[in-house]
Amino acid sequence: MSGQAYDPNNIFGKILRGEIPCHRIYEDDDTLAFMDVMPQSPGHLLVIPKAPSRNILDADPVVLSKLMPVVQKLARAAKEAFEADGITVIQFNEPASGQTVYHLHFHVIPRYEGLPLKPHSGQMEDGNVLAANAEKIIGVLGN
Amino acid sequence: MSGQAYDPNNIFGKILRGEIPCHRIYEDDDTLAFMDVMPQSPGHLLVIPKAPSRNILDADPVVLSKLMPVVQKLARAAKEAFEADGITVIQFNEPASGQTVYHLHFHVIPRYEGLPLKPHSGQMEDGNVLAANAEKIIGVLGN
Repeated sequence: MSGQAYDPNNIFGKILRGEIPCHRIYEDDDTLAFMDVMPQSPGHLLVIPKAPSRNILDADPVVLSKLMPVVQKLARAAKEAFEADGITVIQFNEPASGQTVYHLHFHVIPRYEGLPLKPHSGQMEDGNVLAANAEKIIGVLGN
Repeated sequence: MSGQAYDPNNIFGKILRGEIPCHRIYEDDDTLAFMDVMPQSPGHLLVIPKAPSRNILDADPVVLSKLMPVVQKLARAAKEAFEADGITVIQFNEPASGQTVYHLHFHVIPRYEGLPLKPHSGQMEDGNVLAANAEKIIGVLGN
């Protein structure tokens, strides 16, 4: 594997170190999930491993094996919390694919019949909306 | 988990049973990878578990844990085989998300600077092109 090295100063690295806040939904020893601040649809969240990797290309396979059941758990919870019609899971690798933050992350995007995705480069969502959406998912996870 | 039951007569179920052909790239006890016949970019492939599930929502977490290192392996190999600039991994759940075949599958889509994705509902790719692309990836996997 050639490729660029992991830079710990990416924004998700800062979130993991508590240097900047996030609307946290779920955390365990290996994983953190939080709301995407530029949601492409209501309830759009991110699941990241705590272990550093730039993306899937340089990730430890063991990290991926631990991560995906959490992606599943959050996909199920988001679908229920928002009464969504579907879920799109997307994971971008390198700029040509649309990756903008270089810490491995899976997008979990609730989908609604007749509602196209907003562009990801859109506006920051209101913090109160993100906080309320995080609480909805946390509520489902707690059931 | 509510939701529709798995229907074994989906097209990937038929591929797994050998009832219809595919351009196979990789196979192990739990996993099959083959070329997407309507590629959104050159080298677009699919990775599926042999275990039945409609999508990620009803999958066995153990199946997901085994599957993702193979998705990674194929993402790396496709990037190298096609000298791609990036890789997009997408997994659709239910019609509202764009799912059209109801057997869990991960899209591994090579991305190239300046080349937007083609729509997935496009034309069937020529079988010779798909066979040649499968061989390119197989060649990298064998190294």
